Amino acid sequence: MERNVWRLARRPVGDIADSDLEYGRETLPDLAEGQFALQVIYLSLDPTNRIWMSDMEQYMPPVALGAPMRAGVCGRVIASRKPGVDVGQIMAGLGEWADIIISDGSFMSPLPQLPGIPLAATYGTLALVGPTAYFGLLDIGQPKPGETLVVSAAAGGVGQIVGQIGKIKGCHVIGIAGGRAKCDYVVNELGFDACIDYKAEDVGTALDRLAPGGVDINFEQVGGPIMMAVMQRMKLFGRVPLCGMISGYNAVDGAEPPGLWTMILMRRLTIRGFIVTDFAPRFAESGSALAGWMLGGQLKTRQDIRPGLENAVSAVKELYTGGNFGKLLVEVSPP
Amino acid sequence: MERNVWRLARRPVGDIADSDLEYGRETLPDLAEGQFALQVIYLSLDPTNRIWMSDMEQYMPPVALGAPMRAGVCGRVIASRKPGVDVGQIMAGLGEWADIIISDGSFMSPLPQLPGIPLAATYGTLALVGPTAYFGLLDIGQPKPGETLVVSAAAGGVGQIVGQIGKIKGCHVIGIAGGRAKCDYVVNELGFDACIDYKAEDVGTALDRLAPGGVDINFEQVGGPIMMAVMQRMKLFGRVPLCGMISGYNAVDGAEPPGLWTMILMRRLTIRGFIVTDFAPRFAESGSALAGWMLGGQLKTRQDIRPGLENAVSAVKELYTGGNFGKLLVEVSPP
Repeated sequence: MERNVWRLARRPVGDIADSDLEYGRETLPDLAEGQFALQVIYLSLDPTNRIWMSDMEQYMPPVALGAPMRAGVCGRVIASRKPGVDVGQIMAGLGEWADIIISDGSFMSPLPQLPGIPLAATYGTLALVGPTAYFGLLDIGQPKPGETLVVSAAAGGVGQIVGQIGKIKGCHVIGIAGGRAKCDYVVNELGFDACIDYKAEDVGTALDRLAPGGVDINFEQVGGPIMMAVMQRMKLFGRVPLCGMISGYNAVDGAEPPGLWTMILMRRLTIRGFIVTDFAPRFAESGSALAGWMLGGQLKTRQDIRPGLENAVSAVKELYTGGNFGKLLVEVSPP
Repeated sequence: MERNVWRLARRPVGDIADSDLEYGRETLPDLAEGQFALQVIYLSLDPTNRIWMSDMEQYMPPVALGAPMRAGVCGRVIASRKPGVDVGQIMAGLGEWADIIISDGSFMSPLPQLPGIPLAATYGTLALVGPTAYFGLLDIGQPKPGETLVVSAAAGGVGQIVGQIGKIKGCHVIGIAGGRAKCDYVVNELGFDACIDYKAEDVGTALDRLAPGGVDINFEQVGGPIMMAVMQRMKLFGRVPLCGMISGYNAVDGAEPPGLWTMILMRRLTIRGFIVTDFAPRFAESGSALAGWMLGGQLKTRQDIRPGLENAVSAVKELYTGGNFGKLLVEVSPP
């Protein structure tokens, strides 16, 4: 069996360069007992991909130089020597930037199919970004009715779900996104109360207008000046689920947003970093809640699907410039 | 009735200067209905006093210029027109740098007397620093047996209690204090497992030796380079009760320790600022637990008692240079 695969050739310095990854064709070994082969349908491109390419401090080992690039994937089993995994089954989990993957089932599980909902939406919502939004907002953010929730990267994979769960929980939800189209989408289609177009207006000024009483929960995904504008407006006892800081992932100098220790102390803020896999033992809980909201029409999501494995590098770069609109997926083969 | 009182004359710039407070004598008005007069026995001097003198962002209104300086106090009722408050009763709460205080009972409550334990120890432990240590460590730090707890300002009012509660909860407790005497005290008298003398050795190097596996809980009181040395060694899912950052209170430029956002994210740390009064509804819980440990001999504390209200300014300055050894009190009148 042959496959196409992207390997990490060099660690990016600053922005990802095309030459940092190498696309090639290779022959796969025969399946061993306990393994199965997956025809990849969707590759999930996520902000954390840039972290995995680097050797900065991170939550998993970095991708080794020369190794296949790591990714969330969803695919169909095309051959199996693993009991309980059948040909034709749809599986999702951690895989590689490739069109065929051999797995022993580690970090892989069956993806449920929801009636009337396309596979891209099910995968793009239930598999990783949904649980990220669910546990980050509910466990760490602890939203209460009437509280003000700010979500940066509001039209992105996680952001759109965070805001909608916030609405389900009775919060006043303010998104931050780049451009009129994204802002209109989260307000008109997803039901956010407001959205700040950071490319067109000053985030702090807009927050003062939209949330004059301050911010109870800052679901933080962006870092940099946008984060600082929100943090300056945190209320007493505010919570900050720290999900990511994409604006800094391409930084060459490792510069951090400044410390806000005195503010954390005086306003009694809670800042908590998390990675969705920390909640893996509870994925059944998030899966059933998210599926229920999707089937009930309370949770809509938008995917941004780019065709062709060969386009994965050009697609992933758009995450860091705000070029995607919705959860970014590469369609490697037809669903 | 006449009293002696310290008033805030100017907001300190950098270190507290003698001329920032003015000592004087004044006549008190007669007690109104619902008021009582307290002969102050002990004045509690605490790191937060410097914050109250400033107009930085803080958790209560700053002390107004010209107003009596605010402090925790403990005293004996000498006159009362408040039902339920009797002459001779010992009360503790928020008061002023004065030898007599008129109160309507706000932020004041009776101080229990423990058999065989001096008033200074009861007041110095149960009234404010004990609950600070109790809720900060137990609610925010969530210590589990076998975990490593680091306590800065270990021989200070809060630190000595934090470390002993940590031992009661089965933690490996490492203190940080300035000087051999303080380090010997917390290890030999209070039962800490180790103590780093930050004046004699590099904190990071010592932590690498004493806690090679890293730190689960950093009970943070100091800020600055000591905080950074501990933070660099936090383990995955570590907790940081942010109780204070005394090293920065005298800073003129408002400089903050640098941001550690990426570390908070990647190691999934929880940072939570708190002020003891946030837990006021639960003071009965901390009071009974602390009194039980004191009476059972599991909780020892040391007070550093300076005689004379007129010496309050010279005493308070020692907090910021590490000149106190134990909970710093001014004895205003005999207990």
